[in-house]
Amino acid sequence: MATEESTKAMEDVKIGDAAKEQDDIVDPWNVQSSSETGVDYDKLIKRFGSSKIDDALIQRIEKATGKPVHHFLRRGIFFSHRDMYALIEMYEKKQPFYLYTGRGPSSDAMHLGHLVPFIMTKWLQDTFDVPLVIQLTDDEKYLWKDLTDEEAHRLSYENAKDIIACGFDEEKTFIFSDFDYMGGEFYKTICRIQRRVTNNQAWGIFGFNGESNIGKNSFPAIQAAPSFSSSFPHIFNGRTNVPCLIPCAIDQDPYFRMTRDVAPRLGYPKPALIHSKFFPALQGPKTKMSASEPNSSIFLTDTAKSIKNKVNKYAFSGGRDTTEEHRKYGGNCDVDVSFQYLRFFLEDDEKLEKIRQDYTSGELLTGFLKKELIEILQKITSEHQERRAKVTEEVVKRFMTPRKLKFDF
Amino acid sequence: MATEESTKAMEDVKIGDAAKEQDDIVDPWNVQSSSETGVDYDKLIKRFGSSKIDDALIQRIEKATGKPVHHFLRRGIFFSHRDMYALIEMYEKKQPFYLYTGRGPSSDAMHLGHLVPFIMTKWLQDTFDVPLVIQLTDDEKYLWKDLTDEEAHRLSYENAKDIIACGFDEEKTFIFSDFDYMGGEFYKTICRIQRRVTNNQAWGIFGFNGESNIGKNSFPAIQAAPSFSSSFPHIFNGRTNVPCLIPCAIDQDPYFRMTRDVAPRLGYPKPALIHSKFFPALQGPKTKMSASEPNSSIFLTDTAKSIKNKVNKYAFSGGRDTTEEHRKYGGNCDVDVSFQYLRFFLEDDEKLEKIRQDYTSGELLTGFLKKELIEILQKITSEHQERRAKVTEEVVKRFMTPRKLKFDF
Repeated sequence: MATEESTKAMEDVKIGDAAKEQDDIVDPWNVQSSSETGVDYDKLIKRFGSSKIDDALIQRIEKATGKPVHHFLRRGIFFSHRDMYALIEMYEKKQPFYLYTGRGPSSDAMHLGHLVPFIMTKWLQDTFDVPLVIQLTDDEKYLWKDLTDEEAHRLSYENAKDIIACGFDEEKTFIFSDFDYMGGEFYKTICRIQRRVTNNQAWGIFGFNGESNIGKNSFPAIQAAPSFSSSFPHIFNGRTNVPCLIPCAIDQDPYFRMTRDVAPRLGYPKPALIHSKFFPALQGPKTKMSASEPNSSIFLTDTAKSIKNKVNKYAFSGGRDTTEEHRKYGGNCDVDVSFQYLRFFLEDDEKLEKIRQDYTSGELLTGFLKKELIEILQKITSEHQERRAKVTEEVVKRFMTPRKLKFDF
Repeated sequence: MATEESTKAMEDVKIGDAAKEQDDIVDPWNVQSSSETGVDYDKLIKRFGSSKIDDALIQRIEKATGKPVHHFLRRGIFFSHRDMYALIEMYEKKQPFYLYTGRGPSSDAMHLGHLVPFIMTKWLQDTFDVPLVIQLTDDEKYLWKDLTDEEAHRLSYENAKDIIACGFDEEKTFIFSDFDYMGGEFYKTICRIQRRVTNNQAWGIFGFNGESNIGKNSFPAIQAAPSFSSSFPHIFNGRTNVPCLIPCAIDQDPYFRMTRDVAPRLGYPKPALIHSKFFPALQGPKTKMSASEPNSSIFLTDTAKSIKNKVNKYAFSGGRDTTEEHRKYGGNCDVDVSFQYLRFFLEDDEKLEKIRQDYTSGELLTGFLKKELIEILQKITSEHQERRAKVTEEVVKRFMTPRKLKFDF
């Protein structure tokens, strides 16, 4: 899986460059675009040095798995990758890999956007039948945010319930809080990475400076470490060379550019990645949704009524000012938030395409899209809430216990 | 135990300052003096902002414990302290404290100089009857030195045997390797410290720079954390306010200046400290002994014959060029390494004083001092070797298992 591009990218892409060039700002702590249609993802692929997920790759994946890809891949919601061809080739040779994704537990309330990597990851787990590790970076949140370590740790467990409710297979999945799991081979792997990243490199990649605390400064190694199977001896039986595939939002890529740069010097395989676009705020795609602004997003805890109100009141419309104009000139799917949300959550391709055509032509009004969307979101959230209610403390504990999974290594 | 001086010291004393001022260089990685008599310790006390261990303090300790102090204290081998008066006052009020010391395991062979903090610590443990934690910083050695993490970890266990052979009470002592013990409340305590130290502060105190690896950059929090009882819930039953006394060589003080600066912001007591002078190399006190130069020091593994040879051949003499001159002008105890070693290891005050007088007057020749020293060192090392041979893997394991000690908290 070793390629040259990421080492190059590590040198080239620095946080802060974007601002200078008046490009979009995309890093683990900031996502900002000045464009109505949001971040320019093609530009981002060039800047980050990743590759586009195109039809050829999708066909390659379908050929290897014998199944149609998830609509997140078909629709370009996961739009960028690193080393997916190499990973697929290995998969075809029956060489095992594993999945790694994560979440920073900074609030009780997870919103729809937070589900995106987990939905993708679940599909990958089901399709490829591979082990999955999910990191909850409560230490990161403690180092960055104004909350106690106890609170960050508690949020890990709350968020774990929502993650488990996505339907992950207990026999194939290990979820861990950094505060709990720190130590042993995980800590050794972290030290191995830390020894190979200088302050200059970390400051260049992540924008740290003299006023950053020393915990932030070394944290990237903690998010990098689960990319290496050495971190999980209970799963991989001491094998340190099992390759890893990381589904994540594109803003997390800096961590893994660093990881991929370090990997060959450790004799470990570079992780492969697939990157998602951002799930837009109800008010439009200029920013990510924020858990601290309740009306910017649909939360997994929202009631049917609240969803209806939020979508009707806040979902940015791509329609015209008057019905008459709309019928005449048509709506703009590229900025209409309801349509954008339908792209994430309406699985039926034909139906989505018909909505797109009819909204663009002016035949459908924004109200119709909102109605469709409300129904779908109400169904998703109520089903999620039902599943989450069944996730007992006991279930959480089982998922979060370091243990052998059903795979032999 | 809160005082203002250390916060001030943290700002004032920076590694590198010394070089500029042509002072002695004393930091955790370098000890260098251009003087024949070694480091100017009075100057160091001023630069570091600590206090001298004087007769008044010694009497205070003897009054509190009802016992004469160890000759390391009487003879100014432990010469500097922070907050010892406050600690003694608390001890008299029956408020418990604990001891913390450590070692960086970078070689199999420990030498006599390495014993110094452990001998002092054992005396303190016996005299005050308090819990003791001993940190083996194998992670630090991995981050700094050219050795694998497996090797650093193995050296922790080898060094633990030598430490145990010093005679620590198993019921009162917890020895830990960072690689083993990392995690849980120890890790949380580390994160709490990390959040409160900026890169600027760490660079100022420890001389890190852009080329330092990010592991080194955050390591100070790992050496700081055992100063807080929150790191050892199995010993202190969750109490986070048990004060700590740290016996260490003066070069370790920068870690604890940082620790003392952070403590009040965490609501934890500042650790008290007593600092030792350096044990001189056989060739003289200009540098510390080095494990990588076999003839610079007496190792705990040296045979009686090897000790005799090394002392006779390498121990720097404070005598005159000829016997005649020596008889006439006398020897210089301040630079004679044999005499310096006797100050560490000859317990009989009267005998030592007589040797001092008679060597200074010229009555005794260097050869006599060497003979005395050889006998003492042969006895110390052979007894140490006997005790070490009895330290089985099982004993090591018991000392290094996190567990309740015999104290109730």
